[in-house]
Amino acid sequence: MKNFADKLIEQIQSKKSVICVGLDPRLSKIPSFIQEAALKENPNNKLKAAAEAIIEFNKGIIDAVHDLIPCVKPQVAFYELFGEEGMRAYRETIKYAKSKNLLVIADVKRNDIGSTAEAYARAFLGKTDVFGELMAIFDADAITVTPYLGWDGIKPFVEECKKYGKGIFVLVKTSNPSSGDLQDLKMEDKNSVYEIIGNFVESWGADELGKNGYSSIGAVVGATYPDQAEKLRKIMPNSFFLVPGYGAQGGGAQDVKPCFNEDGLGAVVNSSRGIIFAYEKSDKYDEGDYGKATRAATLAMNEDLGSVVEF
Amino acid sequence: MKNFADKLIEQIQSKKSVICVGLDPRLSKIPSFIQEAALKENPNNKLKAAAEAIIEFNKGIIDAVHDLIPCVKPQVAFYELFGEEGMRAYRETIKYAKSKNLLVIADVKRNDIGSTAEAYARAFLGKTDVFGELMAIFDADAITVTPYLGWDGIKPFVEECKKYGKGIFVLVKTSNPSSGDLQDLKMEDKNSVYEIIGNFVESWGADELGKNGYSSIGAVVGATYPDQAEKLRKIMPNSFFLVPGYGAQGGGAQDVKPCFNEDGLGAVVNSSRGIIFAYEKSDKYDEGDYGKATRAATLAMNEDLGSVVEF
Repeated sequence: MKNFADKLIEQIQSKKSVICVGLDPRLSKIPSFIQEAALKENPNNKLKAAAEAIIEFNKGIIDAVHDLIPCVKPQVAFYELFGEEGMRAYRETIKYAKSKNLLVIADVKRNDIGSTAEAYARAFLGKTDVFGELMAIFDADAITVTPYLGWDGIKPFVEECKKYGKGIFVLVKTSNPSSGDLQDLKMEDKNSVYEIIGNFVESWGADELGKNGYSSIGAVVGATYPDQAEKLRKIMPNSFFLVPGYGAQGGGAQDVKPCFNEDGLGAVVNSSRGIIFAYEKSDKYDEGDYGKATRAATLAMNEDLGSVVEF
Repeated sequence: MKNFADKLIEQIQSKKSVICVGLDPRLSKIPSFIQEAALKENPNNKLKAAAEAIIEFNKGIIDAVHDLIPCVKPQVAFYELFGEEGMRAYRETIKYAKSKNLLVIADVKRNDIGSTAEAYARAFLGKTDVFGELMAIFDADAITVTPYLGWDGIKPFVEECKKYGKGIFVLVKTSNPSSGDLQDLKMEDKNSVYEIIGNFVESWGADELGKNGYSSIGAVVGATYPDQAEKLRKIMPNSFFLVPGYGAQGGGAQDVKPCFNEDGLGAVVNSSRGIIFAYEKSDKYDEGDYGKATRAATLAMNEDLGSVVEF
C-alpha cells in the first residue's frame, strides 16, 4: 500500500502545486444567495439550512480548484458549531473532495490517552465496528494531532496510518502569536520544546517511510516562524510539513521557503480565508462568481509559491 | 452569575460526593438487550441504531446515579466514532444529564489558534450565530482543553466561561503511561513542563475566582501521578482538578488524596469503565440490572473516596 506521503507527492507533482486550501466556512461570509436558498429549502430547521449552505459553498470551492491543488483541509471547529448537522456537512465535504481527486487533511487536532486516541483514530482515519460491520465514518486521508500526551496518544493514529495508508500531522510549531508560550521554552539541554517534539516526530515516523523517503508522520509548522522552520527542516528531513499561516495570518512565499527540502518537496502550504473568501476582496468578481475569485486567488498563490519552490 | 467552580462546589456539598462518572459508551459493551432493541427499531440504519443504543444506555446510567454525584464527563471520541449520529447522541446525552441536575464536563480536549478556538468555544460552551439567531449547540457546563498553543488558544474559552458561567479544565499532567514524554521534561529553570503549565493555569484563572475562592479555569491531573499532583496542588491553590485514572487505570483513593486542598475541595475524581460497565464484573447483577450495578459501584467509590477526603 502507498503511504500517505507518496500519495501527496503524486498529487503535488501531477498538479504542480503545493497548496492546501483550508475549508473553514464561516456561515456569515458565505455568499448570500447560497444562504438564502438553503433557508428557503429548510424553513423550519435553521441548523440543517446552515449545513446545506456549507456543503453547497464547499462544493463550489472544490469544483473551482480541484484540478489546481493537491489537498484541502476542512477545519472541524467551523462544522461543530452546528452540532450533528455540521458534522454531516463535514462528512459530506470530505466525501465530495475525495470524489474530485483531492486528498483531505481533517484538521481536528485530536489527542487523548491510548484507548481514547484509538477511538479518534478509527473515527477519522480507520473504521468503526457498528454492530459487527466495519464502517468508514469520516474517512479522511490524514488528520492533525496534538503531542501533549506523548507517544501513547500518538501510537493508535500511527497504527491506522499503517493499516489504511493514511497520515498524521503532529503540531510542532504553530502559527499563532502565543505559540511560543510553551513551544519556545528552553529545556535543560538548551533545546526548545518545539525542537524536542520535532525530534519525536522524526523518530515516530522512522519506520513509516514511503518510496520517496518521506514518512506518513508529518508536522504542523507555521509560516509565521521561518527561523524555527529552518531548524525543524533539519531535525525532520523525512517528514512532510503542513504549513498554516500564509496569507491572512501574515506569512509570505519567502517565509515558507525554509519548510521545503532541496528536492522542492516536504511541505504543503495552507491558505483558508485568503482563498475561499477571495470574492470579498475582489473588484473583478461578485459573490455569484465566488468560485472564479477563488480559482484566480489559487492560481496567484501557485505562482507566488512557484517563485520559491521548484519540483 | 455564579462561576463554574461555585456551581461544582454546590453540587459536591449537596450530594456529598466528588465523583465524576465518565460516559464512554463502547457499543460492544452496552447490554445486549439495549443493542437488540435499537437495531430492531432501526433495521435500515445501523449508525442511527448505534446512537439510539448509546442514548438509551447513558440515560440508564444517569438515572441510576444522578442523585449520588455532582457531574458526568462524556468523552466525545466514543461518539465521533458514529459520525453525525454519534454527535446527536452526544448532544442528547448532555441535555439529559443537565435535566437531571448534573453538571456536564464535555471531554473534548479541543484547542487551536485564536479564531478557531473561538469557534470551538462557541460550539461547546457558548452559542452559535445561526442566520442571526444565537443557538446553544452542545451547551456543556465545562470542557477539557489542551495547552500546546499557549494563551491565545485558551483565551476564547475563558471569554465564553465569563459570559455564560462555564468552566474549562486544561491538560496539565495526564494519567497515561507516556505522559512524561513531554510533560516531565525539565526546563532550563529546573521546572518541569507540567509545572510551567500549572503556573500558566493559575495565572490564566487569577481573574476568574468565585465566592469560594476557586477559579473557573481548572486542570486535568492524573490519579496515576500522586507526587506530581502534590506539587501541582501547591502551584494551583485556586484551581479545581479533574482527576482521571482512578479505577481501571490503576489509581486508588490514597493516590487522589494529594489532589485535594485542606478544605476537602478542589478536585473531582473521574471513573468511567469501572462505573458504567460495573455489571460486567458483578456476580450480583446481570445486564438487565446494569443501572443497579452502576449505582452500587458509585456508592462504593463514594465510600472509598470518603476515607481520604472530608468536606
